[in-house]
Amino acid sequence: MIDPQRARDELGPLVTGPLSDDGILDRYARVVWNSLTEPGDAAAGILTESLGAFEALARVRRGDIGDSILDQSEARAALQRWEPRMRPGTVAGLLRTARAARLRLVTPADEEWPDAVDDLGAHAPLALWVRGDPRSISAARTGVAIVGARAATSYGEHVAGEFAAELTASGIPIVSGAAFGIDAAAHRATLAGGGCTIALMAGGLERAYPQAHTELVERIAATGAVVSEVAPGFAPTKWRFLQRNRLIAALSAATVVVEAGWRSGSLNTAHHASALGRAIGAVPGPVTSAASAGCHRLLRELEATCVTTAADVRELIGWGELMGLSGRDAEPRTTDATRVRDALSTRVARTTQEIARRSGLSTGEVQSHLGILHLDGVVTADAGGWRLA
Amino acid sequence: MIDPQRARDELGPLVTGPLSDDGILDRYARVVWNSLTEPGDAAAGILTESLGAFEALARVRRGDIGDSILDQSEARAALQRWEPRMRPGTVAGLLRTARAARLRLVTPADEEWPDAVDDLGAHAPLALWVRGDPRSISAARTGVAIVGARAATSYGEHVAGEFAAELTASGIPIVSGAAFGIDAAAHRATLAGGGCTIALMAGGLERAYPQAHTELVERIAATGAVVSEVAPGFAPTKWRFLQRNRLIAALSAATVVVEAGWRSGSLNTAHHASALGRAIGAVPGPVTSAASAGCHRLLRELEATCVTTAADVRELIGWGELMGLSGRDAEPRTTDATRVRDALSTRVARTTQEIARRSGLSTGEVQSHLGILHLDGVVTADAGGWRLA
Repeated sequence: MIDPQRARDELGPLVTGPLSDDGILDRYARVVWNSLTEPGDAAAGILTESLGAFEALARVRRGDIGDSILDQSEARAALQRWEPRMRPGTVAGLLRTARAARLRLVTPADEEWPDAVDDLGAHAPLALWVRGDPRSISAARTGVAIVGARAATSYGEHVAGEFAAELTASGIPIVSGAAFGIDAAAHRATLAGGGCTIALMAGGLERAYPQAHTELVERIAATGAVVSEVAPGFAPTKWRFLQRNRLIAALSAATVVVEAGWRSGSLNTAHHASALGRAIGAVPGPVTSAASAGCHRLLRELEATCVTTAADVRELIGWGELMGLSGRDAEPRTTDATRVRDALSTRVARTTQEIARRSGLSTGEVQSHLGILHLDGVVTADAGGWRLA
Repeated sequence: MIDPQRARDELGPLVTGPLSDDGILDRYARVVWNSLTEPGDAAAGILTESLGAFEALARVRRGDIGDSILDQSEARAALQRWEPRMRPGTVAGLLRTARAARLRLVTPADEEWPDAVDDLGAHAPLALWVRGDPRSISAARTGVAIVGARAATSYGEHVAGEFAAELTASGIPIVSGAAFGIDAAAHRATLAGGGCTIALMAGGLERAYPQAHTELVERIAATGAVVSEVAPGFAPTKWRFLQRNRLIAALSAATVVVEAGWRSGSLNTAHHASALGRAIGAVPGPVTSAASAGCHRLLRELEATCVTTAADVRELIGWGELMGLSGRDAEPRTTDATRVRDALSTRVARTTQEIARRSGLSTGEVQSHLGILHLDGVVTADAGGWRLA
């Protein structure tokens, strides 16, 4: 294995605080695990949780994990899966890249670790890489993920921007994936409003993906955080995008899909949110727009909440209850007063008897309604009878 | 009261079939009730249901209804409500108008009576006036009500027309209210497709409302039916529009709201449908369009089903199950095969070991996936290894 001093040297500024030898070896072991596994590897999650990252790794190196923790075939499959990645120099190399990119390593042992991801159980990340302020990640738990199509329309980008700006004004953090389209519109509006925004990435943080968002990612890191569970030097793949989506869902109080095609990756994020018991919102759009087809699908198939305003999104996360605000006005009730008004004219004065006949109400009822309508200034009376004011 | 011969003369062609004296007096009594009450009068519904229309009317004339059927205060209120409308000549006059307009009178005793309205209980209509084919009213029970804003946008009218045309092609009757906007678009598309459409009106059928739809209403009557529970000569009032909406909801298998403002009358129709246990669909639109705000409200507050295509509407009424058709394709599952494909390149050939390392899978798993991908023609193999085809 590795000695604590070398681990301390290689981790360097990636970790903070005075750490014991055990603490430093635990973090180093998590980096090794990170290099061996793909995101969401349940066998790795179970082993590190049961034995600690360092001891679990020592057992893997001895080829000795087939005990009560995993069953024989699972253990064998896991070892065969991890073995091809055990190559000398991999960890030293990725830590060099991480130091050069000025990243922070955050593990379950760190106070900045977002407890929300533990809801993923065995599929929780083993470690997180961060650019920016690691404390903002936990803040996302009361925030909203605004996600959607890369191929967004101007309608979708407009709505994403409006929602993000208004939620930012309410002090609500915005989580997204830094992609083209909806993601970028949400991040940009949050930055413009001086709010806190967190970007979850599908590859190593030493470079931005997409490359065209290099400056956007810099700006997010400068005020919020850019986060990935994928180690530096590892490229974003389709699998890693799908697993990244589970982190977007887990870190936020609710996921709102603004625009999404029929098979958009954003639907995957919404499904993760659903599985985690997080609220899901979908923004409707024209049924003639392919970019809204996925949102409508969420409304139909996943019973997502239809959200049309930032107020709807605040309601989704229970923000109104927290603030003691009331909902929208209740619908007015149609009463006998409506029937009395129907029976009145602005032109012709009518007697109470005539109004009773026309409204199908008794003269007594008509009189009492006319009294109230008169007080409200809705009707006027003269010698000929009643008329609408 | 009235003698059977005079009733027979006054009803004339408004009723059909050889009718007994009791039968003719029952129908005449229902016309009298119709002239005394506003739509949805529960006291009238309970009395006619309990005693028969003729006997109930005789009791009202004697001022003797305060027995076990209605409680004293209800009975007194009802008599006071009906009394102002008991004027000589009213019934003879409205029957004259009805004959001139060539209407049909349909009562619960007629085979054309649509049983669906009996779901309204005490609020069921006492009689229906019909232009066109009274048998088509019952056909509406397997049909769809397409309703919405008068102030519709071209988007809403387009969707209403598309839905109606496609449903018509499936043989599904279309119910609506003959208003400007969504209603007219639905009726017109059904007529253009040679389908059956039924219009529910809020006033007497001797003239069309709105007047600009005189020709449209003629065309609906010529192939389907135009229906009202409001007697000839009675004007449409706000109350009667709201009560008309309950008939649209009751007569159809589902109510679909295409466009509706925040306080649109179409929401009232949807609420009636909900209360009656009928399915409700709402067509989404841009959140920036006031004409879709009511639809989004139904999705949020009434748990309406989001419908974006005629196929969605057919599903709403269970038409697919009837026809033995399957739903849309299931979502494809992301599997380890995706991870293997992620690890392949079109440019560079890679060994199985290399693919295992990149995908985070064992070499055994990689080999089995490569075998399947090879059979599918997704990958090719040469001396250097595997690559994407």
